[in-house]
Amino acid sequence: MNKVCLGIDLGGTFIKFALLDETLRMVGETASVPTPANQGAGAVIAAMVAGGKALLARHSDVKCLGVGIGSPGPLDLANGVVIGMPNIPGFENVPLRDRVGAGLGLPATLENDANAAALGEYIAGSGAGSKLLVMLTLGTGLGSGIIIDGKVLHGAHGIGAEVGHLIVEPDGEPCGCGQRGCLERYSSATYLARRAQSLVESGRASSLAAVLKTTGQITSLDVLRARNAGDALAAEVWDRAIHLLAIGCVSLCRVLDPDLIVIGGGMAKAGDDLMVPLRQYVQQEHWKLSKLAARLELAKLGNDAGVIGAAGQAWAVFH
Amino acid sequence: MNKVCLGIDLGGTFIKFALLDETLRMVGETASVPTPANQGAGAVIAAMVAGGKALLARHSDVKCLGVGIGSPGPLDLANGVVIGMPNIPGFENVPLRDRVGAGLGLPATLENDANAAALGEYIAGSGAGSKLLVMLTLGTGLGSGIIIDGKVLHGAHGIGAEVGHLIVEPDGEPCGCGQRGCLERYSSATYLARRAQSLVESGRASSLAAVLKTTGQITSLDVLRARNAGDALAAEVWDRAIHLLAIGCVSLCRVLDPDLIVIGGGMAKAGDDLMVPLRQYVQQEHWKLSKLAARLELAKLGNDAGVIGAAGQAWAVFH
Repeated sequence: MNKVCLGIDLGGTFIKFALLDETLRMVGETASVPTPANQGAGAVIAAMVAGGKALLARHSDVKCLGVGIGSPGPLDLANGVVIGMPNIPGFENVPLRDRVGAGLGLPATLENDANAAALGEYIAGSGAGSKLLVMLTLGTGLGSGIIIDGKVLHGAHGIGAEVGHLIVEPDGEPCGCGQRGCLERYSSATYLARRAQSLVESGRASSLAAVLKTTGQITSLDVLRARNAGDALAAEVWDRAIHLLAIGCVSLCRVLDPDLIVIGGGMAKAGDDLMVPLRQYVQQEHWKLSKLAARLELAKLGNDAGVIGAAGQAWAVFH
Repeated sequence: MNKVCLGIDLGGTFIKFALLDETLRMVGETASVPTPANQGAGAVIAAMVAGGKALLARHSDVKCLGVGIGSPGPLDLANGVVIGMPNIPGFENVPLRDRVGAGLGLPATLENDANAAALGEYIAGSGAGSKLLVMLTLGTGLGSGIIIDGKVLHGAHGIGAEVGHLIVEPDGEPCGCGQRGCLERYSSATYLARRAQSLVESGRASSLAAVLKTTGQITSLDVLRARNAGDALAAEVWDRAIHLLAIGCVSLCRVLDPDLIVIGGGMAKAGDDLMVPLRQYVQQEHWKLSKLAARLELAKLGNDAGVIGAAGQAWAVFH
């Protein structure tokens, strides 16, 4: 009988499910159900359990050893508890690991969604064979995961791999976390767009002024489009975000010496418009004592990275 | 027969030797000989071999499984080669690991001296029981080592744990490594003293002007003494170095989540004059999402950390 582990990736919009066999290959297809985000934690957990059972029922020829759950946080990993969840109300101090595990009758493990995505890229995406992989997810915030020799770096208290809160500018812009000058405040999609909007609102000339007037807000995609159409303000904002992201990548090279930095999240859809200047800035900013040893690549798995990594983490814990 | 591994720590002034048993406890005392630094690599290697043999000869009741060598760099760890050595001329592309190993008739492993010191503090110093330890050595430069679950973090190409080259200020002061704004340029003993000297030379009023006139240069100890005697310029320079060191420590907490940051090197002799403001700045600069989880402590082993760590690395490789 084929042994598998089940992965469940809890997102604000969808819950995803996948099975990985012992060789970490997917068994069948991923499955997905809408997240009943407005119905409270009980409904969300019920949907996770029902979806997991439904996927396992379609594979009666497998024996499931355990379930790995990827979840937004902050989390208390040691106890499997969700401390809070900005996008899904009602998730305060919920023992998600044990409730989903009990519902499925399986041993369960909880993992941070960004760590799970990094592990997913390591298992089945850009990261195959990497010795030390850092994944940066550029979206609303700047999420990250670090995989060393195939294992998630958790740190001493389960709060490591928060590269979005690497300080890139002393006494820099205040961050929601309470620090100043965090990388996330310069290089995430949200803050890049917010910076463009605030410059336009302060009266700087830009084609983005018309966008703001029409739609009421500027997105990172608007900034990219305007930059590619020759708008100087948009180019300046895009360029600064990528320059500071490159400085963050160089600092990661010095501290961790990765062979691969994977860039994912919504902003990664910019493709070469992101990666070409990013690679140039990293080459420019990094030291001259040795050649740049880290590759910078786009993520390959898109939204599937988290669920594959969640199942992979179950294998790491329950094999 | 008691099994041991031999550690050899190659420094610019002394070569140190120690034996560790299987429980990583020292057997007997450390030994030390002057480094024949001006006589070329051959003489240095001969002194390492002779010193190792002499120590082993004093312990005829042990069986030595291997030798761990701690060395300044840059190093090619995979091949056991010293690429160059600023303080010991004649060490270009020397296969130190294999030559010392052959001389002693023992399997040998080569480790970066800063990594060895961090492992030494983990084994026998401030770091006992730590899950994730970062050691920062504040001296001529800013050396560092990272120990995760008792193992040295090497990164994917053996060039990780260079925290001195974490970028703390974008477009900051140029560093000898070719980057700008490296932590080392703000917080090492050398650069702190150099900054004080350059401010005095530029005409800023300070009691350090008299020191400069008398001795021809200002040291970090001069800066500390002047600061403690109420000199405003010295206080400003000392404070800035520690503030930026604290920002580096906060970034390390976000990326790695250590439970312990150990501060060693010559500047650590400042004791509370360093640690009290450092802890205050780290508290002030770190995020509000969780309590500060890392302790900041002075190193305990002084110059013995490297040789203990070198022997410990031999145990990690040859047990």
